[in-house]
Amino acid sequence: MKALYLSDNLELKELEAPQFHEGQALVKLCMAGICNTDLELVKGYMSFEGVLGHEFVGVVEKADDSGWMGKRICGEINFGCGECNYCEGGLSRHCPNRTVLGILDQNGVFAEYTVLPIENLHAVPDSLPDGFAVFVEPLAAALEILEQIKIEPNHKVAVIGDGKLGLLICQVLKLTGCEITLIGKHSRKLSLAKSWSVNAVLLDERPEEKFDAVVEVSGSSSGFDTAMELIKPRGTIILKSTYHGKLGLNAAPIVINEVNIVGSRCGPFTAAIRVLDQKLVDVESLIDTVYPFDQSLKAIEHAKQSNSLKILLDFNV
Amino acid sequence: MKALYLSDNLELKELEAPQFHEGQALVKLCMAGICNTDLELVKGYMSFEGVLGHEFVGVVEKADDSGWMGKRICGEINFGCGECNYCEGGLSRHCPNRTVLGILDQNGVFAEYTVLPIENLHAVPDSLPDGFAVFVEPLAAALEILEQIKIEPNHKVAVIGDGKLGLLICQVLKLTGCEITLIGKHSRKLSLAKSWSVNAVLLDERPEEKFDAVVEVSGSSSGFDTAMELIKPRGTIILKSTYHGKLGLNAAPIVINEVNIVGSRCGPFTAAIRVLDQKLVDVESLIDTVYPFDQSLKAIEHAKQSNSLKILLDFNV
Repeated sequence: MKALYLSDNLELKELEAPQFHEGQALVKLCMAGICNTDLELVKGYMSFEGVLGHEFVGVVEKADDSGWMGKRICGEINFGCGECNYCEGGLSRHCPNRTVLGILDQNGVFAEYTVLPIENLHAVPDSLPDGFAVFVEPLAAALEILEQIKIEPNHKVAVIGDGKLGLLICQVLKLTGCEITLIGKHSRKLSLAKSWSVNAVLLDERPEEKFDAVVEVSGSSSGFDTAMELIKPRGTIILKSTYHGKLGLNAAPIVINEVNIVGSRCGPFTAAIRVLDQKLVDVESLIDTVYPFDQSLKAIEHAKQSNSLKILLDFNV
Repeated sequence: MKALYLSDNLELKELEAPQFHEGQALVKLCMAGICNTDLELVKGYMSFEGVLGHEFVGVVEKADDSGWMGKRICGEINFGCGECNYCEGGLSRHCPNRTVLGILDQNGVFAEYTVLPIENLHAVPDSLPDGFAVFVEPLAAALEILEQIKIEPNHKVAVIGDGKLGLLICQVLKLTGCEITLIGKHSRKLSLAKSWSVNAVLLDERPEEKFDAVVEVSGSSSGFDTAMELIKPRGTIILKSTYHGKLGLNAAPIVINEVNIVGSRCGPFTAAIRVLDQKLVDVESLIDTVYPFDQSLKAIEHAKQSNSLKILLDFNV
């Protein structure tokens, strides 16, 4: 099968189809999305070597459990050991022995086939086309914020970073009734946010007011400094970007203002499917370009452009 | 009056007694405690200039409100503006226009007299001797942790730093029923913690297990690295030290493990008085040496010794 493989460099090459073990499903890819984490991995984050990709929708081609055969699915990306306290407590995404699809010791989905544990599968309703279902993973990551902290209807919330995840987060948090201000660098993306009734401003034109919560999703350490500048005493900063490098953090203001900093990663798939299916968020406007999988190297280059929106890979053309 | 005054250097000098304004009380000092924050201020933290000191017990000598006259009191250290949203919401300790007793634009309590707003006063019950009441402020700071986060009876909690505040925090958190491990550097202090049934270990002999919550109260940036090493996924790190300098923070593990970092400062005085009065914590063992106020420079030098416990200043000898 063809696969987009990262080692010393990134190349589209021929690999053997993945081996299929007990309790797993062999999935034929329909569509996949390129995430900023993929681009960070290409730069060396996590020292990952293997098939890239973790946002996808596909069809189960083989599975022990025949109920899944032929089903269109998306899949959770953390593969737990199934035996530790985290896995037994339903939180396998924090299993200390986990592998992570296309990120940690596990080949990903930028390939014609992938394998996942049966328990990671989620059926995609017929009403959700592939181009929507491919957003389940990042939408779940956005919803994770609401699993971790309470946003109240009268809160003022700032989102720093107008990338794809930032735009999803704006839409998800807006559902709480709170007032959102998106702080970004790209007029194209800020305009899109404005179309959803989000206050969207350029970084240099950010307001002087303070916010109850600030989501840092810019992927840069300067974004954290901006977050500290914008947060109210006793407010919460959500760190949503995974990236290389250190934050130089002045500890005193965190203590003096009793700021709460919350790291946030993967989220609840079932809720994400429900939110998509109920059309509570607009993902269609987030799609930039759909490339045939054959052109995935070109697609990656496109995704690297800072003003690009979601780049998708289509396996059916 | 005599006062311990910090400007370019620290000296015991003669000052005019503080001016007494409407809504304030003039307080004659009985006893005061030296806090690590005082020592940080001497090193240049906050660029403070004025009379040091914020842990104290005294007697009201003058007040508009005659009900307070002659009362023995301790006092909250943040002086709010009384007009902003924080002050109106009962959270004047986060007033953006506040001054802070002996820390920010406000002369402190290492002096024969000090002034405080009436609303900052708390009556000290007769059952609490001065040497106990002087612990109300730091005990409130320890209790603040429980105002901010939930510690459950079956949690494992690590406290990094065996200083005076760390020892108070161990005692306060122990009341939740949780299992506490104190990680320190001083056998004298670790022995004291052991006498309270706290697991107390040297830094180099720290356990490999992970903790639900970690309190960083060592006052050093390496303490934060230790906290990150010890915290469970989705666990909470409480930052309790105010000090100069930056933390070099690796952002990725915070995000990946969804760690929660909570800055924590001043706390509830009423609860602290109640806890002391009910003898739920042992402060007597925390007293190292009581110096007459005349010898406060010597007392400060003693407090700087890393194995010292609480150094008190007595104004009545």
